Amino acid sequence: MPKTAKSTTKPVNTKPSKTTRGARSKLKKLRVIPLGGLDEIGKNLTVLEYSDSILIIDCGLGFPNDDMLGIDLVVPDLTYLVSNADKIRGIVLTHGHEDHIGGIPYLLQKLNVPIYGTRLTLGILENKFEEHVFDFKPELHCVKAGDKVVLGQFEVEFIRVNHSIADACALAIRTPVGIVVHSGDFKIDPTPIDGEMTDLARFGEIGKEGVLLFMCESTNVERQGFTPSERKVGESLARFFEAYRKKRIVIATFSSNVHRVQQIINAAAKYGRKVAVTGRSMINIVSAAVELGYMSFPEGVLVDISEIKKYPPEKMTIVSTGSQGEPMSALYRMAFGMHDKVELGSGDVVIISASAIPGNEKLVGNIINELYKKGVTVLNDSVAEVHVSGHACQEELKILHALLHPKYFMPVHGEARHLYHHKELAEYMGMPANHIFISEIGKILEIGTDSAKFNGTVPAGIVLVDGTGVGDVGNVVLRDRRHLSEDGIIIVVSTIDTQACDILSGPEIVSRGFVYAKESEKLIDQIRLIARDALYGCLNKGVVDWTQLKYKVKDDLSKFIYSQTKRKPMILPIIMDI
Amino acid sequence: MPKTAKSTTKPVNTKPSKTTRGARSKLKKLRVIPLGGLDEIGKNLTVLEYSDSILIIDCGLGFPNDDMLGIDLVVPDLTYLVSNADKIRGIVLTHGHEDHIGGIPYLLQKLNVPIYGTRLTLGILENKFEEHVFDFKPELHCVKAGDKVVLGQFEVEFIRVNHSIADACALAIRTPVGIVVHSGDFKIDPTPIDGEMTDLARFGEIGKEGVLLFMCESTNVERQGFTPSERKVGESLARFFEAYRKKRIVIATFSSNVHRVQQIINAAAKYGRKVAVTGRSMINIVSAAVELGYMSFPEGVLVDISEIKKYPPEKMTIVSTGSQGEPMSALYRMAFGMHDKVELGSGDVVIISASAIPGNEKLVGNIINELYKKGVTVLNDSVAEVHVSGHACQEELKILHALLHPKYFMPVHGEARHLYHHKELAEYMGMPANHIFISEIGKILEIGTDSAKFNGTVPAGIVLVDGTGVGDVGNVVLRDRRHLSEDGIIIVVSTIDTQACDILSGPEIVSRGFVYAKESEKLIDQIRLIARDALYGCLNKGVVDWTQLKYKVKDDLSKFIYSQTKRKPMILPIIMDI
Repeated sequence: MPKTAKSTTKPVNTKPSKTTRGARSKLKKLRVIPLGGLDEIGKNLTVLEYSDSILIIDCGLGFPNDDMLGIDLVVPDLTYLVSNADKIRGIVLTHGHEDHIGGIPYLLQKLNVPIYGTRLTLGILENKFEEHVFDFKPELHCVKAGDKVVLGQFEVEFIRVNHSIADACALAIRTPVGIVVHSGDFKIDPTPIDGEMTDLARFGEIGKEGVLLFMCESTNVERQGFTPSERKVGESLARFFEAYRKKRIVIATFSSNVHRVQQIINAAAKYGRKVAVTGRSMINIVSAAVELGYMSFPEGVLVDISEIKKYPPEKMTIVSTGSQGEPMSALYRMAFGMHDKVELGSGDVVIISASAIPGNEKLVGNIINELYKKGVTVLNDSVAEVHVSGHACQEELKILHALLHPKYFMPVHGEARHLYHHKELAEYMGMPANHIFISEIGKILEIGTDSAKFNGTVPAGIVLVDGTGVGDVGNVVLRDRRHLSEDGIIIVVSTIDTQACDILSGPEIVSRGFVYAKESEKLIDQIRLIARDALYGCLNKGVVDWTQLKYKVKDDLSKFIYSQTKRKPMILPIIMDI
Repeated sequence: MPKTAKSTTKPVNTKPSKTTRGARSKLKKLRVIPLGGLDEIGKNLTVLEYSDSILIIDCGLGFPNDDMLGIDLVVPDLTYLVSNADKIRGIVLTHGHEDHIGGIPYLLQKLNVPIYGTRLTLGILENKFEEHVFDFKPELHCVKAGDKVVLGQFEVEFIRVNHSIADACALAIRTPVGIVVHSGDFKIDPTPIDGEMTDLARFGEIGKEGVLLFMCESTNVERQGFTPSERKVGESLARFFEAYRKKRIVIATFSSNVHRVQQIINAAAKYGRKVAVTGRSMINIVSAAVELGYMSFPEGVLVDISEIKKYPPEKMTIVSTGSQGEPMSALYRMAFGMHDKVELGSGDVVIISASAIPGNEKLVGNIINELYKKGVTVLNDSVAEVHVSGHACQEELKILHALLHPKYFMPVHGEARHLYHHKELAEYMGMPANHIFISEIGKILEIGTDSAKFNGTVPAGIVLVDGTGVGDVGNVVLRDRRHLSEDGIIIVVSTIDTQACDILSGPEIVSRGFVYAKESEKLIDQIRLIARDALYGCLNKGVVDWTQLKYKVKDDLSKFIYSQTKRKPMILPIIMDI
């Protein structure tokens, strides 16, 4: 990729801050600024700022809305961080999901910031670095749950939480005005696969010490009760491995759900099956997880996807990407008969061990339909317990609120509806409404030891990534793409002799995405005549100004085409002269 | 609209069939041909054919998939019906939903077919006719539940069923080989708003008589248990009218759900509120339903939306369209502050009395987020019981199967996954697997008194409607629209003197939907140079063939642009000569 970042990469201040950490200045306030995570696009990024120190919590990416045509990814606008580069002390990561770490390569294009995260989180991040070029070796610091790191005015403590990815942490951040706790993404799983439950004891201790601000994720705040344990999925898997002893089993899940994949491996091994892995991100994450010791295969269980024909189908398990129905993912290719190694049929069971993220329901549904048409048995979370969420439901959220009983609360990681519901939950827990702050991207919450209020904003927003272009597609380009996608384009080219006030050649009519050219020859002929008349109408009056000529052609054609077809294609008159 | 249908409209045979109805010919088979309803697009249409008679059951429209860019509607391909126009005896309608009647105006453009339906169904259909022009007055025959109609070889009996629209019917069709029962869309509601439960007694009688083929809808086949009664919603409404006595209440629901709207009116009247209606289809259907006696307002309850400011907010109820989040619907306009009569705020409660149809989740979610941001209280089916489905769940389906105990079964009205699950349900009810036929659009099921098998196909598929164009947008146009929507277009225009082998003017580069033109001047300059080099490369060798020139320009530019941007815009070289 072009090293466009070169000129803008700024080194950040890694020297200890001048004022003593923890020195309480009554004059200074802590500024809490979300730069992401408060809308439907995800891309979490929170900034804590005190005096000469900025601490960044997570830096994620999001996936485009349907109306962001052609866009690959969405990252947070980093303007504020770039213009305050000298204050940044580091970035701390809660866990290794895309919406928390995916923006880091884009941040590193602009800023060289030291990064702190747990081993698996950094392992996944390093994997991503292979697709990007930096002018420097990113500075990665590995931490483990329980560790404390001093970054300028802040001391960050990593606290173990359960989530749908291993090695996830919440953060307790000691600031000069008090303790800020950020939940990261979490659930409370009393029977987790790796034996480590969310560290409720530590949350309780910190709560007793006194929490100034609690920032808590809100994903499942609309759901009552508790999220079931990951172990529940293991029990379902065992049931299906038992029931479908005679079939090949294909399981699609999130590649980052290391514990889920481990449970699949365990079930397969128990039932004497081999495991093959397909899909790029699944292969990447499985190898990273195995290398780092987060996942293990019993001897001889793992086989290469190209060797599955050597084993009888009932002795095979295939672990695949594509649980969100992503076009061209491994599961998609299997369902539509485009996978070069796996052909599915009535001898197969496909388990989709995930639930569709809002917006992906139809993609997943299409795959399920194709599988049924092929005679495949399909199990997904609407008909079988093959998935549990990684996020806390209402009762789990209440436990954290109760343990921490913070002075102030800011719901994060959710759309507006979730933030408002989380506010209601906090009020139900007894918190005064005016101590709860529903923020927006770029909005500054100023907190002192005894007060908190919104005060101003910083530049914030989203930056669209299309191919290698970061930020070169904006509203005008998107508006054009939308226009083009609706009714196509009609191009009207004429070569004009402006001296003689005559058309030398054309108008040629070229259309794309409008109507079948063959079936609409008559319509195209009429369009040509109208364009010609429009041009001569001007030329005969001596009007040779291109802007006027183009306007007239466009205007006449728009009216005619709409009257004939009720469509509004983009009309693009081009005039050449010699 | 242009009367393109004129030349193709064929009169259909309305004379009695020559062979006596009911005469059993061992040689003849009944042909059952679905022309819609078996995929995710909806648009139900089933053809029964016996000897010289064709009977059409429903003729719906569907809404485009995400990849059908710019398409407004999807209707069934009617080729088979047009080429067998002389056999068609009539079309019978089960109920007035779009996916069952929305295709009729397009059918009537090609065929003049007598239409049979209940009063509300025909009332809604006539409403639709206002937007279309026909060469004849459509022949509408009003029937009521219990009526029998003879159409050629067929006798059709209309049987009352409950559904989310009033006046819905199933059909029992006597054919020369036996009785075919088509469920239409149904649920079993023992406490319906109009007091008429699905006529289980009649289904039982027909079952005893002996049913040859049962065609049954499959929408909720994946859901266990029973669908709750419509009355359940009334109870929830009463609870919310009680709880929100001090707020204005806005309720969005499906306009065609006449019973739902009636319950809202009743609740409003009971709590001393006025009712105003907003949204075009809501106004249309409410006035049709009132006129036909399916809905009634107590004296003085209905007020015009332009007069709502005359009443205190806590005395107002607004019934609105937009429960699916449709852009520019009344609810959308209210949520985004674009409604000219209603401004929402913290004094309002919005009840979304519907569940999101798959694919619409994000649209609905966006509206809910906007409402929360405005301080509005929102109740939807994820947090309150404000909606019940209109379709039968597993236990209801089993009741109909048990009452009818048909010889053969064809699941209809569902995506592949639903049809396969319905097959499993029928097998669970004791039906042999080889008596169950999962069909496809255009596939012919041939049934005799003692046999049934698939035998051949007829032309079938979907026709895309864009503006007033029916079928003029096909795969090539859609592919172009997709291409344009992804990365935009780059147009390269050159005027060439083919005699002198020289470029007279250009190449001009015009792009839309590619990158910001201003920010990418350098890139555009490079593109111009490469195009110029490509042209001269040919011209200098004496190559003046336009196809070759265009190919070279396109090829060189594609490679260059992809290497620079990882994007693949449409590249359109245009050559003018003089």
